[in-house]
Parts: sequence; structure tokens; C-alpha cells
Amino acid sequence: MIHVKGYAAKNAKASLVPYSFERREPGDNDVVIDIKYCGICHTDIHQVSDEWGGSTFPMVPGHEITGIVSQIGPKVTRYNKGDKVGVGCFVDSCRTCTACMKNLEQYCTAGMVTTYNGVGKDGIPTQGGYSNQIVVDENYVLRIPDMLSLDRAAPLLCAGITLYSPLMHWNAGPGKKIAIVGLGGIGHMGVKLAHALGAEVTVLSHSLKKQEDGRKLGADHFYATSDPETFKKLKGYFDLIINTVSAEIDWNQYLELLTLDGSMVVVGIPEKQIPVGSFSLVAGRRSIAGSLIGGIKETQEMLDFCGKNNITSEIEVIQIQQVNEAYKRILNSDVRYRFVIDLKSLEL
Amino acid sequence: MIHVKGYAAKNAKASLVPYSFERREPGDNDVVIDIKYCGICHTDIHQVSDEWGGSTFPMVPGHEITGIVSQIGPKVTRYNKGDKVGVGCFVDSCRTCTACMKNLEQYCTAGMVTTYNGVGKDGIPTQGGYSNQIVVDENYVLRIPDMLSLDRAAPLLCAGITLYSPLMHWNAGPGKKIAIVGLGGIGHMGVKLAHALGAEVTVLSHSLKKQEDGRKLGADHFYATSDPETFKKLKGYFDLIINTVSAEIDWNQYLELLTLDGSMVVVGIPEKQIPVGSFSLVAGRRSIAGSLIGGIKETQEMLDFCGKNNITSEIEVIQIQQVNEAYKRILNSDVRYRFVIDLKSLEL
Repeated sequence: MIHVKGYAAKNAKASLVPYSFERREPGDNDVVIDIKYCGICHTDIHQVSDEWGGSTFPMVPGHEITGIVSQIGPKVTRYNKGDKVGVGCFVDSCRTCTACMKNLEQYCTAGMVTTYNGVGKDGIPTQGGYSNQIVVDENYVLRIPDMLSLDRAAPLLCAGITLYSPLMHWNAGPGKKIAIVGLGGIGHMGVKLAHALGAEVTVLSHSLKKQEDGRKLGADHFYATSDPETFKKLKGYFDLIINTVSAEIDWNQYLELLTLDGSMVVVGIPEKQIPVGSFSLVAGRRSIAGSLIGGIKETQEMLDFCGKNNITSEIEVIQIQQVNEAYKRILNSDVRYRFVIDLKSLEL
Repeated sequence: MIHVKGYAAKNAKASLVPYSFERREPGDNDVVIDIKYCGICHTDIHQVSDEWGGSTFPMVPGHEITGIVSQIGPKVTRYNKGDKVGVGCFVDSCRTCTACMKNLEQYCTAGMVTTYNGVGKDGIPTQGGYSNQIVVDENYVLRIPDMLSLDRAAPLLCAGITLYSPLMHWNAGPGKKIAIVGLGGIGHMGVKLAHALGAEVTVLSHSLKKQEDGRKLGADHFYATSDPETFKKLKGYFDLIINTVSAEIDWNQYLELLTLDGSMVVVGIPEKQIPVGSFSLVAGRRSIAGSLIGGIKETQEMLDFCGKNNITSEIEVIQIQQVNEAYKRILNSDVRYRFVIDLKSLEL
């Protein structure tokens, strides 16, 4: 076994503390990665707090992982020692269902093997990126383009693909009017990506506080949703609205902002049911849909696209010892725009 | 002015009684139609009862109209005296908005001119098909294929297109698994049309009472939604679910029946908000959407398709004097599957 150091929550809602554990020796197709950086996703907090149920402990969170390949199994063909790589939200899937065959492993009907808080095919509970090493089948490892720095690239593995996938699926591009609701960790990636794809991008944020940031990130327009005029002015305007906030909103008010055949896409998991008026849907053949991260093939495409367009996340690098404080700041929306843990700090 | 006889509700929730009124003389592009048959749509009852608000009275309902052209304006080019024609849910639209330019007049941003309970461009309140004549711009008149009888064809103008349009938009056809929720006036048209389009059709009905009918109409499968096993057995099965019922249902239970990228489409207007769990959408990139009748071009396509495939509605022909009784029977779901008024009875 490989001895690994990390930070774990020992039980639900507990603070994260230093934790040593073991990972499997690399199998034929496995890549061992020395983890350099790991982004902090709001999901980490949900899971540590067991808000969705079914969390298992001790839990080492983290699924926005970048690092360097330090060892490869004998049958590995895609990666070599020294390669810059990443790992996202899952490390395996059934590989045989329709979803997997369509490169949409995130919708695997048998259930993807999540990077942490899951159980690997080796039977061992998976543990995430708040640690110094990880062992992953090469088919679930991503290549990080050379021109991207590993710290700023880390959030692409979840926040980036979470927005890239729906933007591609719903055809964001030149001539399309896209709204991103919420300018947080995933929202700000949506602005950068939609802008780079050539779409007209509008941020719908609670207030105008982040307006200047929004413009710098690539937004063409910025409106406050606390201003009722916003909903009058933008009625029927958007082809696609991506909602990145979990807070309760008046969904029908947003649906009315869609043009004919427009779609509103949910990428978070709001706890409460979404109340939708059928008239908001029927008038304009509108739809409301959900989207979950992206498959391995599309995640690689996204990384290559980001490489070509020099797109990375806006980050604040922290040491692992600051992780509990970072969680508190995330809950207060006090981060622009993503915390990334420098795993060198595990040595401190 | 043209003197017309019909049946009207004089005020909200009133019984329908004989009513004489006037329609405009035919303009350059108008067609005068001697109405032979008019289907009774549940919408008629909603509007007469002012359940959606804004109803105006006296109201002559009816938007499933078939008849014979009796007169044409000097610039009419598409129709001649004696032609078999139909009129559906609207008789005009702005003709210049994006929706109208895309032949989707039902989503006209200025608002379509509804066949009744609207106001025509002539400034006169529109009155519907429970009458012996109607005057309509030829661009909003449909041609009824010769092989279809005018009584059985009447419900195609609303019930038929209401199902045909979403079936086409969401690509029903060979290899696709379609569920029709509710086997009523519009649901039974969905079964016939989806079957003729080559899709595998499943009826999801409250009970198995109409199972034999369903099979005769073209359903491959028939399940009772009152049986919890139905929702276990069909999990992840359908590409498209069209919900034709206004009754409250557990929407998430139905969304779980959709496969990857599946859509559930609402064609009615349930009064209450639809509560949707975001997880039901996000897991499988599912969507819930709305669809409203169809444009003139698509309605003509549907009629031609029905002509080729000999598809018409299952009907019970009544005299106009029975209309109030028919409304009561519709509210009791006591009709298989559409009432059609024989307007000859206006002479009785």
C-alpha cells in the first residue's frame, strides 16, 4: 500500500484535521499522482456536513486536483512520469452502460465512482485531493495543458467543466445570449468560458457589487436581480440561463427572461423543490433542465480549450492548515473566486 | 356584416344558450367558412368558467372547426368555394416577430389572435366555432385532406396539433420510447400520432380501465400510474414523456422515468406550480418543457400526415343543444374521446 498524508473530517460537520491513510499500489492501468493543488468546491462542504445524506467518514474531500505523475502501472500508455495531470469529480464508472459508451460517465447508470466519499472498484473507500498522492486509472486522468499553471487550473476540473458542458450542450456561441446567475466559484468560470466561446454574456447577480469584476472576466452586461426593473427589461431576452446559485429564487421570473425555445439550466442542487408554473414553460416552448459536470472526453476538450484561450480560475491559494477557515469564508461568500490548497503545506 | 347564429355563454360559468351575432364582411384575403363541425376542447370549459382570468362575454367558444368555404375575398389565392377547410386555436398574429417569421405563430410575441375570447385586427371580439359561419384570413385557414371526414377531423385542429408538435420537436420516431400520460381527448391523439410516427408508445393512465382502447389506438404498452410498481419497472425508460393531464402528479416520479437527455413535456396548464427536484433534472441531464399547439405550417403538415395515415379522432357527435350536458360529462371524464358538435343542429 501507499502511505498518504492528508486532511480529513472524522465525522459529520467536524473540522478537518491531519489524517494518514493508505491507497492501493498502482495496478496495470494506474497512474500515481503527486498532488500539487486542490480546489475547494462547495460540494466538499455539503459532503463533510452530510447535507445530502450517505456521507462516510473519515472523509478526505477534494475533487479539483492537479499534480504531476510520479509513477505509472506497466500497461499505462497515455501518461508518463513528470506529466502535468488532473483529476476531477470521479475516478471510475461502469464503462459499459449507454452513458459510459457515449462518453458521459457522469451519468453512468451504475453510478460513477466519486473521487471521494465513494467506494473504488478495489473495494476501498475513495479519498480526495486534500492529500499528497492519489492513484487513479489512466482512463480517468486528465492532461493539463503546459501553458496552464497547476494552481489556477485546479478549479477547472469541477467548476470549469460544470459550466463548459451545459454551454456546449445548449450551443453557446456567437449570436447566442447567455445569462449566468451568480458570480461565484462556478459562475465566474461560466462568464469566462461563455465569453471565450463567442456568446454575449450577461451576469445576473444579487447586487451590482461585483460588476467591475464581471466586466473584467468577460461579461458584456451585468444586472442586479434585487432590482425589479431587471426582470422587466430582460423579458424574453436569453437563449440560455445557467443558474449557479442554490439560494431560493422566483424561478418563473427567470423563465420569463428566456426567448422562444430558451432553456434554463440548473447546475447546483438547491435543497428545496423548484416550483415552476406550467404557463412559463408552455408560453415559448421553454424548458428547465439539469446538467452535471461532464464526461472525461469533454473535460479534456475543456482543458484544451482553456489552454488555447489561456482560461483559468481566479483563485486565492491557501495552506491546508487554513482549510476550516476557508470553509467559513465560502459560507459567507467571502472568496474571489476559488480557494485552492497548496499541498506543499502538508509538510509544514 | 354577416349575421351568424351560435351558442354563447352570456357570463362566466353560465350555461350556453342560443346567440345571434355578427362577423365582418370578408376582406380581400378573407375566407368565409360554413362551419359543419366543431370539437369541444377542455379549454372551452376553462374559458367559459373564466378559470384563467380575462374572459370576455358573451363568449361563443370553439376552436376545433371544420367546414366548407362558402365565399372568398378578391385576393384569396389558396382556397376556393367548396374547399374542405379547418380553423384551429388562432385566426391571426403579428406576422413580423421572430416567432411568426419562424412559422411559430402560436408563440407570437405580440400575442396570437385567439379564435374566440380574443379581439381581431378588425377590432371586433373574436367568436368561435359553436356557430354556423366564420370569417378568417386565408393565411390562418387549414386545408382538410379529402380522405378525412369533417366530423372526425375537427379535433385535429387543437388536440391533434397539440400532440403532433411536441412529438416532432422532440424527435419522436423509430427507436424512440414515448410515454403519453393520460388517455383523454388529447392523449388518445398522442397515441395515434406517435404510433404512426414509428415510435414505441406507452400509455401511463391512472388505471387499466382503458387498456383495451389504448392498444387499439396504437399503444405498445399500457401501465397504471396508481400501481407503484409502474414507477420501479419503467425507471429511466423513456426518451419523451408528454403529460396531457392537469391533475396533480408527483412530477419527480415521472422525471425518474426518463432516460439520459430525456424530456417531459407539459401540454396542459395545471393550475398549481409544478414542484421539481433539481436532482431529478441534474441526474441524467433531463428537462421539463412546455409546448403550445403548433404553427399554421406545422398544423397543415399534421393534417396532411393524418390524411396519408388515415388518422382522425375518436368522437361522439352531439347536437348543439346537448353542449351543456357534454361539458358536465367532460368534467366527469365521461367521453371517449372527444365531443364534436354537428352544427346542422343549429337549425333545429
